[in-house]
Amino acid sequence: MIKVGIIGGAGYTGGELLRILINHPEVEITFVNSKSQAGKPVYATHTDLLGDTELVFTDELHTNIDVAFLCSGHGESKKFLEANPAFKGISIIDLSTDYRDQSEGFVYGLAELQRDKIKGAKHIANPGCFATSIELALLPLASAGLIQDAIHISAVTGSTGAGQSLSATSHFSWRNNNISIYKAFTHQHLTEIGMTLNELQADFDQPINFIPYRGNFTRGIMANVYTKFEGTLAEAKELYKNYYANHPFTTVSDAAIDVKQVVNTNKCLIHLELHNGNLLISSIIDNLTKGASGQAVQNMNLIFGLPERTGLALKSVGF
Amino acid sequence: MIKVGIIGGAGYTGGELLRILINHPEVEITFVNSKSQAGKPVYATHTDLLGDTELVFTDELHTNIDVAFLCSGHGESKKFLEANPAFKGISIIDLSTDYRDQSEGFVYGLAELQRDKIKGAKHIANPGCFATSIELALLPLASAGLIQDAIHISAVTGSTGAGQSLSATSHFSWRNNNISIYKAFTHQHLTEIGMTLNELQADFDQPINFIPYRGNFTRGIMANVYTKFEGTLAEAKELYKNYYANHPFTTVSDAAIDVKQVVNTNKCLIHLELHNGNLLISSIIDNLTKGASGQAVQNMNLIFGLPERTGLALKSVGF
Amino acid sequence: MIKVGIIGGAGYTGGELLRILINHPEVEITFVNSKSQAGKPVYATHTDLLGDTELVFTDELHTNIDVAFLCSGHGESKKFLEANPAFKGISIIDLSTDYRDQSEGFVYGLAELQRDKIKGAKHIANPGCFATSIELALLPLASAGLIQDAIHISAVTGSTGAGQSLSATSHFSWRNNNISIYKAFTHQHLTEIGMTLNELQADFDQPINFIPYRGNFTRGIMANVYTKFEGTLAEAKELYKNYYANHPFTTVSDAAIDVKQVVNTNKCLIHLELHNGNLLISSIIDNLTKGASGQAVQNMNLIFGLPERTGLALKSVGF
Amino acid sequence: MIKVGIIGGAGYTGGELLRILINHPEVEITFVNSKSQAGKPVYATHTDLLGDTELVFTDELHTNIDVAFLCSGHGESKKFLEANPAFKGISIIDLSTDYRDQSEGFVYGLAELQRDKIKGAKHIANPGCFATSIELALLPLASAGLIQDAIHISAVTGSTGAGQSLSATSHFSWRNNNISIYKAFTHQHLTEIGMTLNELQADFDQPINFIPYRGNFTRGIMANVYTKFEGTLAEAKELYKNYYANHPFTTVSDAAIDVKQVVNTNKCLIHLELHNGNLLISSIIDNLTKGASGQAVQNMNLIFGLPERTGLALKSVGF
Repeated sequence: MIKVGIIGGAGYTGGELLRILINHPEVEITFVNSKSQAGKPVYATHTDLLGDTELVFTDELHTNIDVAFLCSGHGESKKFLEANPAFKGISIIDLSTDYRDQSEGFVYGLAELQRDKIKGAKHIANPGCFATSIELALLPLASAGLIQDAIHISAVTGSTGAGQSLSATSHFSWRNNNISIYKAFTHQHLTEIGMTLNELQADFDQPINFIPYRGNFTRGIMANVYTKFEGTLAEAKELYKNYYANHPFTTVSDAAIDVKQVVNTNKCLIHLELHNGNLLISSIIDNLTKGASGQAVQNMNLIFGLPERTGLALKSVGF
Repeated sequence: MIKVGIIGGAGYTGGELLRILINHPEVEITFVNSKSQAGKPVYATHTDLLGDTELVFTDELHTNIDVAFLCSGHGESKKFLEANPAFKGISIIDLSTDYRDQSEGFVYGLAELQRDKIKGAKHIANPGCFATSIELALLPLASAGLIQDAIHISAVTGSTGAGQSLSATSHFSWRNNNISIYKAFTHQHLTEIGMTLNELQADFDQPINFIPYRGNFTRGIMANVYTKFEGTLAEAKELYKNYYANHPFTTVSDAAIDVKQVVNTNKCLIHLELHNGNLLISSIIDNLTKGASGQAVQNMNLIFGLPERTGLALKSVGF
Repeated sequence: MIKVGIIGGAGYTGGELLRILINHPEVEITFVNSKSQAGKPVYATHTDLLGDTELVFTDELHTNIDVAFLCSGHGESKKFLEANPAFKGISIIDLSTDYRDQSEGFVYGLAELQRDKIKGAKHIANPGCFATSIELALLPLASAGLIQDAIHISAVTGSTGAGQSLSATSHFSWRNNNISIYKAFTHQHLTEIGMTLNELQADFDQPINFIPYRGNFTRGIMANVYTKFEGTLAEAKELYKNYYANHPFTTVSDAAIDVKQVVNTNKCLIHLELHNGNLLISSIIDNLTKGASGQAVQNMNLIFGLPERTGLALKSVGF
Repeated sequence: MIKVGIIGGAGYTGGELLRILINHPEVEITFVNSKSQAGKPVYATHTDLLGDTELVFTDELHTNIDVAFLCSGHGESKKFLEANPAFKGISIIDLSTDYRDQSEGFVYGLAELQRDKIKGAKHIANPGCFATSIELALLPLASAGLIQDAIHISAVTGSTGAGQSLSATSHFSWRNNNISIYKAFTHQHLTEIGMTLNELQADFDQPINFIPYRGNFTRGIMANVYTKFEGTLAEAKELYKNYYANHPFTTVSDAAIDVKQVVNTNKCLIHLELHNGNLLISSIIDNLTKGASGQAVQNMNLIFGLPERTGLALKSVGF
């Protein structure tokens, strides 16, 4: 059994990790750390876990674990490791942005990009949710060196992408039945997307125009990405199907897709269309699972030599 | 033209009042008071009013008006009138709970109960939203002295009923696709409902069992009310249709009803069924219009001798 | 491995069964029958299963299976068994209403009522969704003979309860942001609820007043049930906690509950309040899992001697 | 009073027209034609109009009217005028696509493009909903001859844009909490958008890349449009504010916008950002009002010499 510690277990990604790990057949949760909720049962915060676990949040930290998941939010992971250097000696999977630049030996944890490198890594920087959906839409093209023009992206995210803090744009009366955009052309994930594409296509140097939408749903991201492509649709499909042939969570769909196909799963579905020389790649993930905690568990599985899908054959919600 | 001042114009009921009054043909808005937003345009807060009004919030108060609407929230109206006694000399329509016990000469502003009394009133206590929907379901029965057994009520409210404050139950990620209850058997509107029924049926002394639901929609209330009834369905319908014959906003529907029929209007629709001696009365209103600001304008119209529907022939949203 | 056949696999309950069974460690799906979709991949209909299964719908029937799930809808199960009498020799779990009267040797498959009887049964009538939520709210009271007055119920169901047929009330433009009731006092599940209560409390003979709501969400049922109760809240809690102590899917929550706590799980959560001699029991389930296909798998587990939770430790959706 | 006939009054655009016209101070509705609903009250179909109108659908046609609105759907308007040539002698406002190519003397009814031409027109082709939102985003640029590069558009529409027919993608269980795209790069409105831009900028000959999204809300469209722009943001704002200075329904917002600001109104709000030489223009309308029936009434007002906002000072829904 893999002994796991969770740092920052009271937030959305911490909760999602707990939902997955309590049923993971090879995991034993050693502790769930939360400063704000210490002493309270986990189900007092993640109320859907009532009846599933008797775990209690603690403010203690232990290093007699095999892996620590850092779920405290952006900027907090660096602080945590500086304050607790003993943790550097154990496996770390960090869900924040702090090490996505692969600094300090961290490996960017996108299995579809660099599975072997992850298998041998000690410290993983788990990708961002928008970044995951967009990178999975572009990896095959980049791997073939075929991104030769500007990339145009619109993508819609569920509200859980913004975490559990209360704000004007997370108020139900505002967000219900509404649609809006934010951080157009400037979203912070553009950095990691550019870095990832350069890993596969060193000469990539095109603008990435990205319009992120706030969707009026809770879970899921749909990204629609297009760029110039000189081949046929059949060639594009072959490229994508070959690229993902050995990746269990990412599948090319011949039929059109909608985001609920992947909600509550660790899957990514991709659909391709070709229009007037533009290859349109649609990509859907669940932002909390494949876009965060599910992918983190996928990375843990790889590090510890487990089959990639262990504990991640999740029942989709369907509706 | 009726000169209007609004106190507490930056909240939900203040905004709804502004949406109605800027198009009211007999009204001139003299000032909109808001401590928190003073100096800013009204459309900076109520962003849907951009292009419709150049009004600016002020922290000043003026008594050279014909009527003041108090929209500052429960407990604030009493404080306001104590701090600003000069306002007692002008017409007041209070949207809080502060005077719904008809204390200090305030008249309970439910036109379907006591239109004539409202016409002659100076100070109006505007009914609560749940109270309005439930009272309109029961007034005809009470007027005939026919409530002789316990009353059972379930009712679902939109999120705007809880105002604009941020809370766990107003967070989109929680409330979307969710349903829950609160304050079962203890909701604060039970007091005014009981008082109102006693106005029409002095011997009424039955329990009112009320289960309020938090709906995952923004506007509207549906109340379903049942109690023992000894007559036929035809007799019940006749009683209700007669009672509301001269009330322009409340209509008995022979067909089943759903809450979107009245959203964005000042209407109440009522539907009756009879099952095994239980009369089931369904009642729908928009909590922000008929349940708050629309009814407040209806009361203003009555006070100033205008036709009751003036400025209130609102286009429903339909969908 | 248990060899499974599914009859009527293209509908909502068939799809939900497939979502659960493809990950069930003790099950092998022998065939999925669908007249309308024969020859097409299962993922063409249940599109969220793309990447998870290569099963194909068939119009053939085979009896070399251990258990058949009948998912063809109300009235169809009887027809099926009459047309295919060979199936009577194997285990049957019927998701329709056809045998919920326990006729022809069928056993009503509510484990919390009669687990031992189910363990020894060959043919199971799986309970209805509203019935499940309401019966779980009342079983402990009935087991103690304590239902001595009328029962008052309001309950809200997600849209999937109405199946996949298109109708005016399943149109998104109508149902979104809407609320309404249907079949008040006359819902067809009242029969099985009455029968079930009589199994535990033979003298039960009180009216059950039931107002079903159409909720504007997809999955889940919240039932709120009250009746007279002479004890204390502590006594009621003890009664309920004792009753469900050995039932892994039903848990009493001390905190208030909301339906998303159980969506995508086979769980039922129950919350109790006492007001003026009325015991209010709130009960939440997912209508498609605990209210249909999950409960069907629970029954299969019991028949075949598996631990009750096998294949049913489902990750909740949470949001 | 303007005497109005409505052809095809039982659909979504017919209903929306009725909601507006029953309160229009200068209109008398002479008849509402519907083959399918003839003889039934209008409120039996448009149930939110109960209590507002006693109009009854008819299968008769009369030409003693001033203007006919054609709401029967795409392809039906041409058939209607061929079968009923007498109608060609009266004013026609056609809400279908049939004459948007300005054939047979029809004038494209976008007031912000050609108000004077509309004032003098007898027959109007009312613009499409997506087309309206996108054209209003681009008219000022085109008027200055400044569209010199490809146009990139993503836009999200509410479900009412697809009308009242039942389909897999209008099923609540599918669409709720979901997001998807359709007709990418091939949407039928691209033709009228191109035609409109050419009216203002004759040399315009750039690709228009358009990704339409199906939103999980009922009313509204948000379009986000970007193209290369060589000026400053201040210059762009000045261009847009000047262009719309005399158009009462279209306003440039300095603050970011969200679609609920315009739901249930005839308004369009526009917001501008400049990023790396890309001018991003966001545009929001209500697809049923400004995108259909409200704009049709606006055109009627212009034809009959009324102030443009007559009957169109609609209360927004806000939430």
